[in-house]
Amino acid sequence: MRVLAVDPGLTRCGLGVIDGRLGGPLQLVDVAVLRTPSGDPIHERLYNLQTQIEEWFVRYEPDAVAVERVFARSDVSTIMGTAQASALPMIAAARREIPLALHTPSEVKAAVTGNGRADKAQVTAMITRILRLPAPPKPADAADALALAVCHVWRGGMQSRIDEAVRAARPAATRSAALAGGAAPTRRRAPRSAATPAQGISGRAAGRSR
Amino acid sequence: MRVLAVDPGLTRCGLGVIDGRLGGPLQLVDVAVLRTPSGDPIHERLYNLQTQIEEWFVRYEPDAVAVERVFARSDVSTIMGTAQASALPMIAAARREIPLALHTPSEVKAAVTGNGRADKAQVTAMITRILRLPAPPKPADAADALALAVCHVWRGGMQSRIDEAVRAARPAATRSAALAGGAAPTRRRAPRSAATPAQGISGRAAGRSR
Repeated sequence: MRVLAVDPGLTRCGLGVIDGRLGGPLQLVDVAVLRTPSGDPIHERLYNLQTQIEEWFVRYEPDAVAVERVFARSDVSTIMGTAQASALPMIAAARREIPLALHTPSEVKAAVTGNGRADKAQVTAMITRILRLPAPPKPADAADALALAVCHVWRGGMQSRIDEAVRAARPAATRSAALAGGAAPTRRRAPRSAATPAQGISGRAAGRSR
Repeated sequence: MRVLAVDPGLTRCGLGVIDGRLGGPLQLVDVAVLRTPSGDPIHERLYNLQTQIEEWFVRYEPDAVAVERVFARSDVSTIMGTAQASALPMIAAARREIPLALHTPSEVKAAVTGNGRADKAQVTAMITRILRLPAPPKPADAADALALAVCHVWRGGMQSRIDEAVRAARPAATRSAALAGGAAPTRRRAPRSAATPAQGISGRAAGRSR
């Protein structure tokens, strides 16, 4: 299973890709921290990020996507940008019908260190060990995206199988077929065209007047 | 000038399109309130919305886009979905290099009623009058998206001209040329390819390790 993990943010957006499965060794594929200039308008920063995130989806064809769940913190202006940035990998995964899960920072820390309140140094040390890296990943924020990916493999395997079973049981034949195919971990899915929304997602809403 | 206004939300997302200019009559083109099933996973709801918002960009080819600025309110779970939904029209506008502005709810109310604390009934009454509609727009939430569009025309004209002048002064030749063309209100821009990010937006960030 290949996991693409996104630690969203406008100023720093961590991307990590690993290969592996529950009970097996995990392998680093790629990691980066994307940045957008703080002076640019927000919509351009978001589009800039989206372009780069899409490139990662195309290049690495992940079987699963993990996104860090955004919570309200003290700095409201930051949280808005983080929430907006988190929408980008979510729509990229949904368009391709790639299973997606959200994990909280505590879940990620607990998964890789055994302690939901572990500090950054501890997370970095464990990620370096788990992925058998010659040195800690750089820049420092990169470790967070990798920890999210590891968390997804170790924590998410069972949940995503349940989710897929639930979806496969839905009446829409097209969708069930697509997901039955998608259940094989190495299978690559063709991107879903924007012109043909998935079965099972409600179409245009009511309320058009004139 | 044709304005597409988006009042973002996961449960209800208002879209309004009007034609007009500062000092001239305003004309309703279309209005709708999109809904997504609350039982669907958030990434599917976002993708569902994105698909529909993209359709409106293609169908109406707006010259400008207005998005309601999202603020933190008491209900954190709602605000996250609203912030995520607000990213969708923002990236759609940025990809096409269509000028975009954010307006706060107070600015919108002040623009159409003269009172930043006006209630919903007052906003609806004024929108019905300003757009010379035979009846108030339905559903009720639709009036908010139209008020945002009206606010943009009445409030945004001057600001967007300033913004364009600032951008046109940027060194990147490609971008300046594109925006000089975009300054003609009726000119249609070709969507910018995802493979060719705009000049002036920073490219891939540093920090790829191995």
